[in-house]
Amino acid sequence: MSKFLREQYQNLEPYTPGEQPKTDNLIKLNTNENPYGPGPRTKAAISGEQVSKLMLYPDPEASELVEAISQYYELEKEQVMVGNGSDEILAFSFMAFASEGAKVYFPDPSYGFYKVYADIYHSRANPVPLTEDLRINPDHYKNLDGTIIIANPNAPTGIALNLNDIEAILSSNRSNLVIIDEAYIDFGAKSCVPFLTKYDNLLVIQTFSKSRSLAGARVGFAMGGKEVISDLNRIKFSFNPYNLNRLSILAAAEAIRDEAYFQQTRQKIIRTREKFTEELKALGFTVLPSAANFVFARSGRLSGKDYFTGLRERNILVRYFGKEPISDFVRITIGREEDMEQLICATRELLGKGI
Amino acid sequence: MSKFLREQYQNLEPYTPGEQPKTDNLIKLNTNENPYGPGPRTKAAISGEQVSKLMLYPDPEASELVEAISQYYELEKEQVMVGNGSDEILAFSFMAFASEGAKVYFPDPSYGFYKVYADIYHSRANPVPLTEDLRINPDHYKNLDGTIIIANPNAPTGIALNLNDIEAILSSNRSNLVIIDEAYIDFGAKSCVPFLTKYDNLLVIQTFSKSRSLAGARVGFAMGGKEVISDLNRIKFSFNPYNLNRLSILAAAEAIRDEAYFQQTRQKIIRTREKFTEELKALGFTVLPSAANFVFARSGRLSGKDYFTGLRERNILVRYFGKEPISDFVRITIGREEDMEQLICATRELLGKGI
Repeated sequence: MSKFLREQYQNLEPYTPGEQPKTDNLIKLNTNENPYGPGPRTKAAISGEQVSKLMLYPDPEASELVEAISQYYELEKEQVMVGNGSDEILAFSFMAFASEGAKVYFPDPSYGFYKVYADIYHSRANPVPLTEDLRINPDHYKNLDGTIIIANPNAPTGIALNLNDIEAILSSNRSNLVIIDEAYIDFGAKSCVPFLTKYDNLLVIQTFSKSRSLAGARVGFAMGGKEVISDLNRIKFSFNPYNLNRLSILAAAEAIRDEAYFQQTRQKIIRTREKFTEELKALGFTVLPSAANFVFARSGRLSGKDYFTGLRERNILVRYFGKEPISDFVRITIGREEDMEQLICATRELLGKGI
Repeated sequence: MSKFLREQYQNLEPYTPGEQPKTDNLIKLNTNENPYGPGPRTKAAISGEQVSKLMLYPDPEASELVEAISQYYELEKEQVMVGNGSDEILAFSFMAFASEGAKVYFPDPSYGFYKVYADIYHSRANPVPLTEDLRINPDHYKNLDGTIIIANPNAPTGIALNLNDIEAILSSNRSNLVIIDEAYIDFGAKSCVPFLTKYDNLLVIQTFSKSRSLAGARVGFAMGGKEVISDLNRIKFSFNPYNLNRLSILAAAEAIRDEAYFQQTRQKIIRTREKFTEELKALGFTVLPSAANFVFARSGRLSGKDYFTGLRERNILVRYFGKEPISDFVRITIGREEDMEQLICATRELLGKGI
């Protein structure tokens, strides 16, 4: 730490992202990436002609992408803003709506970054514990006095709230902004975007990193009332107007227009998840009901740490959090069929059942 | 503005970027883009194979790029950090070192974003007026009591400080961080990076947007003492660990390794600037001595606004700021030889000399 760092940031504990190993010989199931690459139309959008234009600034409004998203979700374009990954939009949201002493409520455990944002923006963080069976109890979020942020489906559990529960939270918090982080929504839960016509206290955040196969392009987006979106743009244009590069704008716009590829890959992942879940259960695992592209599972016979380490030794990387109440669990990204089969084989081996 | 926006951001005045017109039939000399596209090696770095990997997260440390930069400048890699354009790094720097009541000094006029960052991070902004001939007087920056940020060469004037003047500022401010924004350094001024061995209060910020022909890829970088760089990374990893996308990391790393293309294009731009400056002077213009890829010029016979508007009507876009003490000036990016010839023709026409 230098002597120049402002005191208020001296105790920051940055977010620890999942390991990004630099070798290629691993089955990488630790950061919820899509096993299927970007579709042919998306790849074609990054043409040689477009690469040749990289000396020019991008469109700071990213109009092509904003229009593609607003058409997809049948919104006005003033209801959509885009960011350098949904992490940037989450950061802008904490800054705009929950900074400097404002209260913010979020489930615990959930996406670990919420706590980090609360720290960096000096929000008063109110983590709300999950129930004993690791669910969000919607009653815990009614009639609160601060910003609410809920991942739906939640991470790392994968469990989704239904729309009735979300609406009950929205309607009992008309004076509070309710942010629903739908990073994993396309793998089995219902988006609450339709509530935007009814609730001006709703902000929905999604990403191209999971169901759209573009984690490496860094594109997230927010959908909300025009005023809330205009607030976020005020922050963006005071922070980094050109926050999206030219190629990511093009790739993401094409990815959201290519409905066929999206449906095909997300359904493949859902099918693989269901099959894999059954196989894990047959091996005695507890598997939470997932609406995401990962499962959260516990062996009962192997500790979370031993299972994680055993898989790592077999070149399979999953995510282990090592804290209560989830220290017995690992989070396993749904990869290709053959990746999950290898993981099942390794698991059998670890359980001493031989292969 | 929504009712949810925190009071401290309600009066923010976002930065106004130069117009990014969506038509192609303009000579665009308003945002200091490089007229020469990325080099063949840089373009080749964005291969089909790499595009196919966009479902994977980027390396959050951007090691390949950090290494390429540290090799180029003969620094240790812990002395380099990269951002989503130098704007993001400037924002992180204001946040880390000059936020919440801390004093910050910068020239006025200079890059307009410094004032915006001071606003959004609630710094106590101390704009230091330029001299009457629009120069930075280094004596104005000695023995101060806050963070100092100086663009060298300055924008929009293009005038550079020499290294002796910078060293005098560094040595008289050992307790203050001195940030030198070298966005335009490669077009005729000397970088103060070598001072890093001597001064732990120096932070140098550069960009790939100008001399490296990658404005559309959004890549900036900071070089400083290991502790200062670690502070910036602490902010980055608490804000957006994956702040650089995969393709921009690859393109920028190759751009900095391709010394031949860099030298060839920057020297072409310098030659064009010198020729164009003489031509403008021959038409009676005052042209400030530029070490950048733009010139700041005043006609004496046409007001800044009329000149800007007249060029716009002839499909040539330059930048006009319309405020004192620079309201008679326009800032003209150095484009290709033929762009500048067309601008000279249009100028002759506007001056009533016919073509």
